[in-house]
Amino acid sequence: MPADDARSLRTRRTTVKRLPKRGRYERETIDAILDEGMICHVGFAVDGQPFVIPTGYARDGDTLYLHGSPASRMLRSLAAGASVGVTVTLLDGIVVARSAFHSSMNYRSVVILGTATPVTGRDEKLHAMRALVDHLIPGRWDDLRQIMDKELNATLVLAIPLREASAKVRTGGPLDDEDDYELPIWAGVVPLSLRPAEPLADEQLRTRIATPDYVSGYRRPVRR
Amino acid sequence: MPADDARSLRTRRTTVKRLPKRGRYERETIDAILDEGMICHVGFAVDGQPFVIPTGYARDGDTLYLHGSPASRMLRSLAAGASVGVTVTLLDGIVVARSAFHSSMNYRSVVILGTATPVTGRDEKLHAMRALVDHLIPGRWDDLRQIMDKELNATLVLAIPLREASAKVRTGGPLDDEDDYELPIWAGVVPLSLRPAEPLADEQLRTRIATPDYVSGYRRPVRR
Repeated sequence: MPADDARSLRTRRTTVKRLPKRGRYERETIDAILDEGMICHVGFAVDGQPFVIPTGYARDGDTLYLHGSPASRMLRSLAAGASVGVTVTLLDGIVVARSAFHSSMNYRSVVILGTATPVTGRDEKLHAMRALVDHLIPGRWDDLRQIMDKELNATLVLAIPLREASAKVRTGGPLDDEDDYELPIWAGVVPLSLRPAEPLADEQLRTRIATPDYVSGYRRPVRR
Repeated sequence: MPADDARSLRTRRTTVKRLPKRGRYERETIDAILDEGMICHVGFAVDGQPFVIPTGYARDGDTLYLHGSPASRMLRSLAAGASVGVTVTLLDGIVVARSAFHSSMNYRSVVILGTATPVTGRDEKLHAMRALVDHLIPGRWDDLRQIMDKELNATLVLAIPLREASAKVRTGGPLDDEDDYELPIWAGVVPLSLRPAEPLADEQLRTRIATPDYVSGYRRPVRR
């Protein structure tokens, strides 16, 4: 079920039906959300029971990488060709409306549908591992102790092509019923964001190792 | 598939297999995560395709409530008795290890399996709506314009019993290979938390409406 055109990942299955004005299908929006997020929620079914598991990921071009232990039920199920749904959600705020009905949240989310393929070539696997590490902390890969072949062999890496997806975005203040604006009820937005606190050095850290800039100045890339 | 005993929500299907030391099954831990979280990710399958959709929720005793439009594909699918998986994840930090293999994240997550039942009685529906509103902002329900019957009728509320679930928790610093502690590589944790910024009053807010304490002092309930 390919998308309608090269720049949009919209398909019948990824068309936002509830509140369609919030639907976005262009790669720029989808990529920005995927690149800011840190965990995705992976949906797959085993014996008819849907499971939703949080895990790290990285986007690299038109590919979403997942990784983990070859013993993981989730990864084994996906590697065997099961259909998968992957969702990344950024929570941006609580929309404090004057009625329960219009109370809401500001968020940006991406829903991806597809199937996963194991990444088997050593070079592509290394490439994916670098993407996964640098997605969380850009620049970290080059500072790490080099990955060993036994570690690479003990890691299952999966690639999901970004072919069928949609984003859903809500921004702004409450949209109340016309009559309710006169009521003596506070309304507005409580903005929320995932923020870093002061880094904690490992207790076993050797002295004279300076905190790298990518840790002391840690922040997510925000593109809206 | 009921849980093993009244206080634990562990079943064969919710037993954490990967890194079993991170598994938690007691209600206290599960409830604390559910009560701190603001969105859940709901997994369900349509024509064999798993979908994962972010949405608000509330826990009330042994029940997880979801709500939304009766036109929602997700809610309709669940109301029809489809098996559902619901996951709540709190991201607590990036674990900056000395190798890619031990790089990780600190998190607390809950996976719930079950089926949903529509809440139809007016009183129980009102009770659920109050729980959903007050889960996001404790105390807000009493300040809202009273909900109208037409709004209540236009809202589908679902209840999922907390019968089969597990939590998974990672805390603390990196656990590196013994030899790697001698390397001149910084390691530690970048703590992360979802934090509120200064509330933004609605531009259409009437003057002389003070910001309520539950907004100006907004914070999530943290129990660890």
